[in-house]
Amino acid sequence: ARPKVGYLYSKKSSNSLIFEAIKDIKVSEIKSKPAIVTEDTTVYDAIVQLFLNDAGTIFIVNNGYLTGAVSRKDFLKIAMGNSDIHKVPVGIIMTRMPNIITVTDDDLAYDAAKKIIEHEVDSLPVVEKVILDDGKEVYKITGKVSKTNITKLFVKLGEGR
Amino acid sequence: ARPKVGYLYSKKSSNSLIFEAIKDIKVSEIKSKPAIVTEDTTVYDAIVQLFLNDAGTIFIVNNGYLTGAVSRKDFLKIAMGNSDIHKVPVGIIMTRMPNIITVTDDDLAYDAAKKIIEHEVDSLPVVEKVILDDGKEVYKITGKVSKTNITKLFVKLGEGR
Repeated sequence: ARPKVGYLYSKKSSNSLIFEAIKDIKVSEIKSKPAIVTEDTTVYDAIVQLFLNDAGTIFIVNNGYLTGAVSRKDFLKIAMGNSDIHKVPVGIIMTRMPNIITVTDDDLAYDAAKKIIEHEVDSLPVVEKVILDDGKEVYKITGKVSKTNITKLFVKLGEGR
Repeated sequence: ARPKVGYLYSKKSSNSLIFEAIKDIKVSEIKSKPAIVTEDTTVYDAIVQLFLNDAGTIFIVNNGYLTGAVSRKDFLKIAMGNSDIHKVPVGIIMTRMPNIITVTDDDLAYDAAKKIIEHEVDSLPVVEKVILDDGKEVYKITGKVSKTNITKLFVKLGEGR
């Protein structure tokens, strides 16, 4: 009997091909430079940094370690409210660790995309875990992966035509 | 001589496979519902609609036709300024047609992703051209394609593993 060639090239099959092609792409290959400020930065100055970096999310550090994140959406909520954005420090309004979804350099770009969709966020910090002398776990931020990075990857992957 | 099998599966080749797999996916298959307000809506009310729709960009219509767009970033700039967002209509601050990049239902999802990256925007309106009695060309908005839609597509394509 003739082999069912058509079946082999069904949707399911071409998706597996796609996964074959993307399964080796690591976060480290697509990450970009994150916009970072310290906790005591005013909301106003943090927004200025957001614009200067043309970023969608700003990450907050304390003593060099990641402590929080604020998105464009969070800033817009604050800017519409009654707070004095020239006085309130960004540390007060940020989403605080451990409530931030992170990835590491060795995670798959594909899994980063999945996390972005599942957790409905625009951007993930790329982190390295550090264990301090007192046993506390902290995270250094080495980059970010956003929907922009994923969209760029998608465009690059299709360029072989 | 033995065929150089390895060469066939080089990076270039797997990218072509990816393009084969995505080249039939149209904008109509991945578009989602756009957040829309009229030109006379106040900036404040437009931002409220942005939040209610959890959208990154709001599209503006006049007489049912697309006339403008405002992004989260544009709103944040306005909200930080001295304008009274309860009084200023969104029509005053929007990016106005024809300065908006659009796509149609029959465009490739891939080409929409390329436009998003090349023009550095978050979202594209999906439009249908209408020619009015006076010969003027106007556009009905039927959806949007954003970095979120592209990231979701990327995740879906890889699910075949």
